Amino acid sequence: MPHSQTSESAIHRRLAEIHRRHLSNTSGQVATYIPELAKADPNAFGIAMATLDGTVYEVGDSRQPFTIQSISKPFVYGLALEDRGQEHVLKRVGVEPTGEAFNSIVFDERGNRPFNPMVNAGAIATTAMVAGDSHQHRLNRILDLFQRFAGEPLTIDEAVYRSEKSTGHRNRAITYLELNSNMIEEPVEEHLDLYFRQCSILVTARHLAIMAATLANNGVNPVTGERALEPRYMRNLLSVMCSCGMYDFSGEWIYRVGLPAKSGVAGGIVAVLPGQFGIGVFSPPLDVQGNSVRGIGVCEDLSTHFSLHLFDKNMPLSVALRRSYRCNQVRSKRMRRPSHQAILDQAGSKVQVHVLQGDLFFASMERVIRHMASELTDVKYLVLDGRHISRLDASAQSLLADDFQHLGEAGVKLLFAGLPHLLRVELLLDTKLPWSMHDFVDSIDEALEWCEDRLIEQAERAGDGDAGLITLSEMDIAAHLDAEELDLLSSLLVRRSFAPGETIIREGAAADEVFMLIAGSATISVQVPGNNRRRRLGAVGEGVTFGELALFEGGTRSADVIADVPTECFVLPVAALHDVAPEKPNLLVKLLRNVGRTLSRRLRQANAEIRTLD
Amino acid sequence: MPHSQTSESAIHRRLAEIHRRHLSNTSGQVATYIPELAKADPNAFGIAMATLDGTVYEVGDSRQPFTIQSISKPFVYGLALEDRGQEHVLKRVGVEPTGEAFNSIVFDERGNRPFNPMVNAGAIATTAMVAGDSHQHRLNRILDLFQRFAGEPLTIDEAVYRSEKSTGHRNRAITYLELNSNMIEEPVEEHLDLYFRQCSILVTARHLAIMAATLANNGVNPVTGERALEPRYMRNLLSVMCSCGMYDFSGEWIYRVGLPAKSGVAGGIVAVLPGQFGIGVFSPPLDVQGNSVRGIGVCEDLSTHFSLHLFDKNMPLSVALRRSYRCNQVRSKRMRRPSHQAILDQAGSKVQVHVLQGDLFFASMERVIRHMASELTDVKYLVLDGRHISRLDASAQSLLADDFQHLGEAGVKLLFAGLPHLLRVELLLDTKLPWSMHDFVDSIDEALEWCEDRLIEQAERAGDGDAGLITLSEMDIAAHLDAEELDLLSSLLVRRSFAPGETIIREGAAADEVFMLIAGSATISVQVPGNNRRRRLGAVGEGVTFGELALFEGGTRSADVIADVPTECFVLPVAALHDVAPEKPNLLVKLLRNVGRTLSRRLRQANAEIRTLD
Repeated sequence: MPHSQTSESAIHRRLAEIHRRHLSNTSGQVATYIPELAKADPNAFGIAMATLDGTVYEVGDSRQPFTIQSISKPFVYGLALEDRGQEHVLKRVGVEPTGEAFNSIVFDERGNRPFNPMVNAGAIATTAMVAGDSHQHRLNRILDLFQRFAGEPLTIDEAVYRSEKSTGHRNRAITYLELNSNMIEEPVEEHLDLYFRQCSILVTARHLAIMAATLANNGVNPVTGERALEPRYMRNLLSVMCSCGMYDFSGEWIYRVGLPAKSGVAGGIVAVLPGQFGIGVFSPPLDVQGNSVRGIGVCEDLSTHFSLHLFDKNMPLSVALRRSYRCNQVRSKRMRRPSHQAILDQAGSKVQVHVLQGDLFFASMERVIRHMASELTDVKYLVLDGRHISRLDASAQSLLADDFQHLGEAGVKLLFAGLPHLLRVELLLDTKLPWSMHDFVDSIDEALEWCEDRLIEQAERAGDGDAGLITLSEMDIAAHLDAEELDLLSSLLVRRSFAPGETIIREGAAADEVFMLIAGSATISVQVPGNNRRRRLGAVGEGVTFGELALFEGGTRSADVIADVPTECFVLPVAALHDVAPEKPNLLVKLLRNVGRTLSRRLRQANAEIRTLD
Repeated sequence: MPHSQTSESAIHRRLAEIHRRHLSNTSGQVATYIPELAKADPNAFGIAMATLDGTVYEVGDSRQPFTIQSISKPFVYGLALEDRGQEHVLKRVGVEPTGEAFNSIVFDERGNRPFNPMVNAGAIATTAMVAGDSHQHRLNRILDLFQRFAGEPLTIDEAVYRSEKSTGHRNRAITYLELNSNMIEEPVEEHLDLYFRQCSILVTARHLAIMAATLANNGVNPVTGERALEPRYMRNLLSVMCSCGMYDFSGEWIYRVGLPAKSGVAGGIVAVLPGQFGIGVFSPPLDVQGNSVRGIGVCEDLSTHFSLHLFDKNMPLSVALRRSYRCNQVRSKRMRRPSHQAILDQAGSKVQVHVLQGDLFFASMERVIRHMASELTDVKYLVLDGRHISRLDASAQSLLADDFQHLGEAGVKLLFAGLPHLLRVELLLDTKLPWSMHDFVDSIDEALEWCEDRLIEQAERAGDGDAGLITLSEMDIAAHLDAEELDLLSSLLVRRSFAPGETIIREGAAADEVFMLIAGSATISVQVPGNNRRRRLGAVGEGVTFGELALFEGGTRSADVIADVPTECFVLPVAALHDVAPEKPNLLVKLLRNVGRTLSRRLRQANAEIRTLD
């Protein structure tokens, strides 16, 4: 069962208000052209609205069943497209509105075909195209289609079906005219029978809302998650609903309501706001065009109250660029030796990061690549942080591919960081796109670290940095120590080696040692509670002091530090330092000052980073 | 002059490729129904595309002038709507597609009106509705309309106008039939003359693209920023373009291309993707329906290549909720005394922040309020961070208003932080909305601080905190000092008072004193370079130590600290501390440790905040 919102939500209150207002409108006539339909209760009235994440809002008789009638037409049109392909179908049924009534016997003579699949003539020709080994097989395929859209088992109202079949003379006449003009082929009585049955499927307003939401959701039922129809045909269904879904009221409907829709003579209306949600309304009394009077009123009200018109201002250009920064503003979480930090202070601006988000399509991507082009001065590395991208459509992919090649020619390296796995696979499997595995990294932090490493390499190759093994006197913690103090500190240090994967510091352990990494590299991380993953907080490189909390008698460790590669550290047991403190108080004071200065600098950098990120 | 992208952009390259491909298509016939049009060069071919921020991409003969012809119809329809209102216009001209050709003499007999404003009969009736004191005045108003849409002065092609006027017998016949049926009134020769002139206005593909982008941009010309037409009529123009813009090819056009559009017999096509951009194409050879052959090919290719179809999957539900957090994860920038921090550690989760972004409309707001409702457990204060909101449409406003009242009844206080000024004014001026000035604060930091202050007040009223004047021994910096050390520290301190607005610490000054705030409040800020504004970095409350860099012999101050209210501090001159250090080394060591521990805690919190924000 899908999730229903029937209680206190603002939207439910609005629907209830609209339902109340229209309930008193008793104009219109229940359909009488077949005896069974004439029995409908003119007071029955339900409204439902389904979102693309499967929430259904409903009021009134939203679960009362009625026959789907002409609302079946666009869905079966979709099945015909899937079975026969677009060109085959278009040759046999046009897509041009006629301005004529639903049961018109006028044909598109130039094309020798019915004008469109929403008039009966076109709908019968559409049903004739549904494939299957037998009558029963074809019927099952039609019923299955509707069940996928509604997300629930559906049945046929046998009484209505028999009534339709025994009184549907005009439809029979249309069918034989089509046979006569070679618009359709035998077995025409079987096609007609299927058509009468498809019109007699029982649905509710709630079903219609979910069916509409499935159309809005690119063919995937948002409640069951099942694909109801191939996504590439969705635009075709919505297009015919838009141009001819409401009989000879279609133009005015789009003008006033502005949603692709389809009505049926039993009083149902289905309406779709693509990419947003679906609406289903049920109320039997019809106007002269054969559309539900209350249904039209409700949809017009909903469209006005919620600004849903397709051409209303509610079509946003989503904010695709979340943020941009350079690597001198935000760094990787790797702590580096002072000389390397100095290189990055200088060269970090060569790394430009753009954080993208949401759905990337033509117009949003156009802005992104234009912005990227305007921010290329002195850039050597361009990182696209893709964690927040939810979709990259084909046009965005190909614009990006063009740009990728263009940047490559200009000597700029483009990296994709943190793109969701499925999108990455999609980009890599499309062999027309120019990138390879190496252009993708898992996280933005990895991408930043990789770029920083390249900048440091280049600077050191140019002779700007010092590449040798770090000495104690070069480390921040040993700043301002005189020779005697340096010797004393050296004498207190223990040198310790760690194998790759070995824990240097363990979360929760007592903090009683300070570490100075002199060779290798280690990662700072914590165990994610309740699962087997680790969350990476940062990394430590050569020349960096860590675990300095020990100097402040600071309780327990807040994270694990684990060696990535064979790693060498100088370890300062704080107890040893305290032993010598009474004689040499200056050493302790200087170490505390040095560590304090480092912390203070890191804090200032972190605060600047917060301001950049926020 | 608008900004043009004619060089190396990926989009320009695609347009050039499409132009090249269709240039070789020489099918179709230049219009011959008036002699002047027959002179058109069948090889002339231009494409232009304009974005909603005024960038124009163009290739080929995009600046070659031609007469606008029927493309004038939707624009003048807009002028009639502005002049007469929607109901008046609808009574005189329908909006129903006919399936008939552009010059059809069939009328909607039920309504006694032309079927729609895109066939000649409807367009002449539309022009008849344009207001003005005189023939000349009406003509000027029509010309002004097109100039606002194109953003440039336009002229009428006199030769074409005379040719139209002297050979337009069928249009004259239609006009007199309309007069005969009381569909229009005298002076009909003046109406006809205006109609012929409006069709003879000279435009280029570039103009058409900008005109289309103006329609896409809710009636505001994206190049000049001028409003061309009232926004509320935009949906009407786009609706008639959608249902009947391409003559009796309109259904197939929406099916294949999926953009509201209008063509003219001189070979122009204008097409709109609402909210995204506009397209203009020019190529004189026409197909049997009277539409530009290359124009249709180009639009179909653009639609396919860039996934522009109105009902294609490129209609994103923008990511409206950027981030959510509670106040125990992210704090205001006010530094507080330890006892207050403890209160906030505990009670901070009562403050829930949702950061919204982009365009808020029905479907995005529906998700936001549903998410808000699901995250209300134990929440007392709900802060909406609105800095990144670009638009709140009427339906989003009213859903939010409903929710605001609902939250109020449930005892939750809702605050709007950092909403752009114009949006705030809009919300406050609408008297139907339930909020007042007090519900809006300028920045998210102010909102957080306000909520924190309330939490602290409540805790203190409940007896959980200590509200008295802070003593030295309660401060972090004095932790672990014994009585003798505390006395010694006290003897070194100088008490200093600051008036509101007085500078306590000045950026760039030497850092030689440590401050302990014992009464009042101060703000940390920096001067924004090149302007008179200050950037607020944080605030200091009672019981907080600041300027502690002085203890590390730490160079110069990095920000100003300015008293907000009358403020009292204990000041520790570091030189005095050094004077006593040789005798009492423990005091210095303990102070360094205490400050180090505080810095370390702040750094850890800042890093956690970075992870929350990122």
